[in-house]
Amino acid sequence: MLKRIFPILAWGVQLNRATLGKDLMAALVVAVMLIPQAMAYAMLAGLPPQAGLYASLVPLLLYGVFGTSRTLAVGPVAVVSLMTAVAISEVSPPGSADYHLAALTLALLSGAFMVLMGLLRLGFLTQLLSHPVISAFISAAAILIAGSQVRHLLGITTTGKTLPELLPSVAANLSSTNVVTLALASAVLVFLLWSRRGLATALRRLGLAADLATLLGRSALLVAVLLSTLAVWALDLPSHGVSVVGAIPRGLPSLSRPEFSWEMLQALALPATMIALIGFVESISIAKTLAAKRRQHLDPDRELIALGAANFGAAFTGAMPVTGGLSRSMVNFDAGAQTPAAGLLTALTVALVLLFLTPLLYFLPQATLAAIIIVAVLALLDLETLRHTWRLSKADGAAMVTTFGVTLTLGVAAGLLAGVGLSVLLHLFFTTRPHIARLGQVAGTAHYRNVDRHALVTAPHVLALRVDESLYFPNVAILERRIGEDVAAQPELTDVVLVCAAINTVDASAVESLMAINQRLASSGLRFHLAEVKGPVMDRLQRSPLLQALSGQVFLCHHDAMQALAPEITATADTSPRCAHLQRTGTAPQG
Amino acid sequence: MLKRIFPILAWGVQLNRATLGKDLMAALVVAVMLIPQAMAYAMLAGLPPQAGLYASLVPLLLYGVFGTSRTLAVGPVAVVSLMTAVAISEVSPPGSADYHLAALTLALLSGAFMVLMGLLRLGFLTQLLSHPVISAFISAAAILIAGSQVRHLLGITTTGKTLPELLPSVAANLSSTNVVTLALASAVLVFLLWSRRGLATALRRLGLAADLATLLGRSALLVAVLLSTLAVWALDLPSHGVSVVGAIPRGLPSLSRPEFSWEMLQALALPATMIALIGFVESISIAKTLAAKRRQHLDPDRELIALGAANFGAAFTGAMPVTGGLSRSMVNFDAGAQTPAAGLLTALTVALVLLFLTPLLYFLPQATLAAIIIVAVLALLDLETLRHTWRLSKADGAAMVTTFGVTLTLGVAAGLLAGVGLSVLLHLFFTTRPHIARLGQVAGTAHYRNVDRHALVTAPHVLALRVDESLYFPNVAILERRIGEDVAAQPELTDVVLVCAAINTVDASAVESLMAINQRLASSGLRFHLAEVKGPVMDRLQRSPLLQALSGQVFLCHHDAMQALAPEITATADTSPRCAHLQRTGTAPQG
Repeated sequence: MLKRIFPILAWGVQLNRATLGKDLMAALVVAVMLIPQAMAYAMLAGLPPQAGLYASLVPLLLYGVFGTSRTLAVGPVAVVSLMTAVAISEVSPPGSADYHLAALTLALLSGAFMVLMGLLRLGFLTQLLSHPVISAFISAAAILIAGSQVRHLLGITTTGKTLPELLPSVAANLSSTNVVTLALASAVLVFLLWSRRGLATALRRLGLAADLATLLGRSALLVAVLLSTLAVWALDLPSHGVSVVGAIPRGLPSLSRPEFSWEMLQALALPATMIALIGFVESISIAKTLAAKRRQHLDPDRELIALGAANFGAAFTGAMPVTGGLSRSMVNFDAGAQTPAAGLLTALTVALVLLFLTPLLYFLPQATLAAIIIVAVLALLDLETLRHTWRLSKADGAAMVTTFGVTLTLGVAAGLLAGVGLSVLLHLFFTTRPHIARLGQVAGTAHYRNVDRHALVTAPHVLALRVDESLYFPNVAILERRIGEDVAAQPELTDVVLVCAAINTVDASAVESLMAINQRLASSGLRFHLAEVKGPVMDRLQRSPLLQALSGQVFLCHHDAMQALAPEITATADTSPRCAHLQRTGTAPQG
Repeated sequence: MLKRIFPILAWGVQLNRATLGKDLMAALVVAVMLIPQAMAYAMLAGLPPQAGLYASLVPLLLYGVFGTSRTLAVGPVAVVSLMTAVAISEVSPPGSADYHLAALTLALLSGAFMVLMGLLRLGFLTQLLSHPVISAFISAAAILIAGSQVRHLLGITTTGKTLPELLPSVAANLSSTNVVTLALASAVLVFLLWSRRGLATALRRLGLAADLATLLGRSALLVAVLLSTLAVWALDLPSHGVSVVGAIPRGLPSLSRPEFSWEMLQALALPATMIALIGFVESISIAKTLAAKRRQHLDPDRELIALGAANFGAAFTGAMPVTGGLSRSMVNFDAGAQTPAAGLLTALTVALVLLFLTPLLYFLPQATLAAIIIVAVLALLDLETLRHTWRLSKADGAAMVTTFGVTLTLGVAAGLLAGVGLSVLLHLFFTTRPHIARLGQVAGTAHYRNVDRHALVTAPHVLALRVDESLYFPNVAILERRIGEDVAAQPELTDVVLVCAAINTVDASAVESLMAINQRLASSGLRFHLAEVKGPVMDRLQRSPLLQALSGQVFLCHHDAMQALAPEITATADTSPRCAHLQRTGTAPQG
């Protein structure tokens, strides 16, 4: 029980020198990526750089205690940081005293929402986000994030969080580009883009051992940070207009109880919900992939609680909203992390940096951070999926295009709501139209198939319909309509058989609808029969007045029904192995 | 084509003396009910009595031209009138100059929404209203309607449109009850309640012919109206504080173009949508039942257009929102109406009353109209369904109790939204949890069943799962989770087979999910196979990269898969008639 609540008790006792060594190695590699990224994502959210570093400390410790993933790397991530920027700048103007408080409130609320979802097992809510909607949303967010960093590359000021606001703003300020900043940014950007593929190979060609080359290849961020900081300091670039990170307070974050206000909590409730959903979906998807690679167990509900705890930690240590990140988790896994101890050691490294190395970060240029963000979000941009999805399903494609377009033009909140709304509506629309087949006999056999697809034998006075979905309120009207139309069009009908083999469940609307169909058929002199009703459906029908009121019979299998109702066409049929089997194993109820 | 747009062209040419005679008889019987009810529902909506009479004229003519139901009786109905009262009193205070304009705006908007739904074939939106939600909503509305009429029975003034407002208001004003009004109202109420069952029987006992007795039994409303009006006039009851209908302008309504305002249109858009949905659902349900009784055709999309046209007519003739009514349609049908000519003749009767008989209605007491409303809505109250539904399905029961409770306490709009919201959420929740069975072999046969229910043979290295629903975004996560858990728990597994016999369709999320499952299984050294994939699903998979990436095979039937993967358990099995049959008819694709 305790091990279920605190998974650390389960993996903690298995720690040994070998796994700890691997975890430490992975922790150092992740920290080298995390420290500049954390500051960059804090900048993206409009927060001071230490907010990102603080978000890489206590939240990691808390996730380490509660998390069930062995290799997930938690901390500030790009999309959630953008959503944070959008949400809090609507509540408090950027730069105001309440701006950071709003970020902490957002972390508190999304943490609370995650814990609540985990405790109430409401993780299913995240399933309202379909893959195409998430993919389109993240791609559009990546474009918006890259767009927001253009000002740091050019050394200009821009406004706006959507493309229609951002593009004219960039165009208007293009003439005030700072050439030194642009040159520095271009150098860093080119180096980072090249190093994504070429650095490890180049190092190997220079004669380094393969392992060391791979390791150094992962240090491209560190190299970019060190070299650009050195250049800024040595060449006195701030006097040429290059913006730097500046002073970061030395020391660990103190535990604080921010003065959360009721109005701010209300104003941020919806954005916090969206951040919790998107943050969890991103995190669980990478955690699932990594757990599967080593056949490890993962509990989504406990993951929600662990991420919620991490965000609580962020709220009370002056940090910002966090979740599991894609790229750092992959690096953590590849670098050989064995247990969540890697995450704890990463946090320890961040703590050491905060205690001793902050003065070294003073001259780190913002252009470098912007380049780091842009390279990171390029990996999120996935327009190929859009093309695939469109080919696969027009409905999913439409949801995807809508999410993408609305996110780019109207912002992240509108885009996400439009995507979810449209995909739920389309889903309901398609579930309102179940596939209904009229059945006919494969001549001389006990097999029945769709008359629209095969040449089959039918009895003119018997209408046999098979519904290929469970029956519930969004789709019962179609069945009523179909039966009504067929009966109106064929005056010779005397019997209607509903073959229920594909109906796994019925709700109260379906039962009422079947009763209405039965009553309407009876009122115009037709009998209504059921065949091949599954066990759980029969249980429910037996608790309703339908079976008493039924004008016809319940048949075990459709061939039995046809033998009773249309002996003229079934006389020549061989015995039915299917019916025989149903009777032998007794899985279907007797009518 | 013209006959499709104007069904009157189809049935009009079939009119003859015999059907016209029957239609006229039905028209007169309906008019006798309609005229007092129309005034009563206008009063319920807070409108002058002529608004109800006007709503029984042009809208009926328009429905007669466009409608596809032969026996539906259109006009003001109780629930829509209550919704009208609630919606317009939030926009304009009752009694203000704009109050009636708001009602006309509401008719225009709900008419436009109905026509739009009909043209775009969006009738499926009405299926978001599940039977239990509609039933609970109408029952709660009936209680609110009856409650709102208490003041007319007692001759007092009350305020409030929900029980928590209404009950204290009635209690506070109870002491000012007008005893004469109460006596008159009680007499009418008792007479109407008794006549619902007893009048026709009593008349027959008095020696009248059965037909005539039935006919006169239906005239209870007319008798109540005539006798109470006569009593008020003869005894000069207005001087004792009995409220009467008063002067109704003589003559037909003139065609008017109300000065619709943009703000009012915006404010009434949501209530108009709800009125359109509820109005259509009520109307189509009775129309379907009546059409089925005579095996007549009914087109829901054309019905939407016809009801929309009727509401347009209401908006431009100083009337109020209309729809098809339950009780009058039943009476119309029972009285022998053959064609929509009955509706046109009903409208003609109303026109004659407006032209010549309005002075006779001056002394009609409002208490009589209130009693007519209360008796009419009693028929809508259906608490029995709540009990049945709860026994059948707790989820539907919960949606029903919520709708009922919220409607009574917070009003019709909140109740309807809560009910629809909850039933859609519950529906999505249940579709997120598909039934997944692990399959085992019925020893020595080619049949496979759920291992949790039967004693079956399984191969320790093969996991065979059958999903009993189509796969789409709300439920794919459960399949991923189940496979992940089973694989983590059973290290001896080498193969996973997904039996797709019950999967009728897959969306893009499902395809991506299958690809993720395949990739995760492959990364931990397992093969992923599919079996019994249906045609439409295979078509879609073939357009995706899944089949190329699949680490295992696609098998025609599950027994083939087991023969290939676990020959040790299938060696003793007889030949599979199911597999043989699949191969013979070739309905499943070859892997």
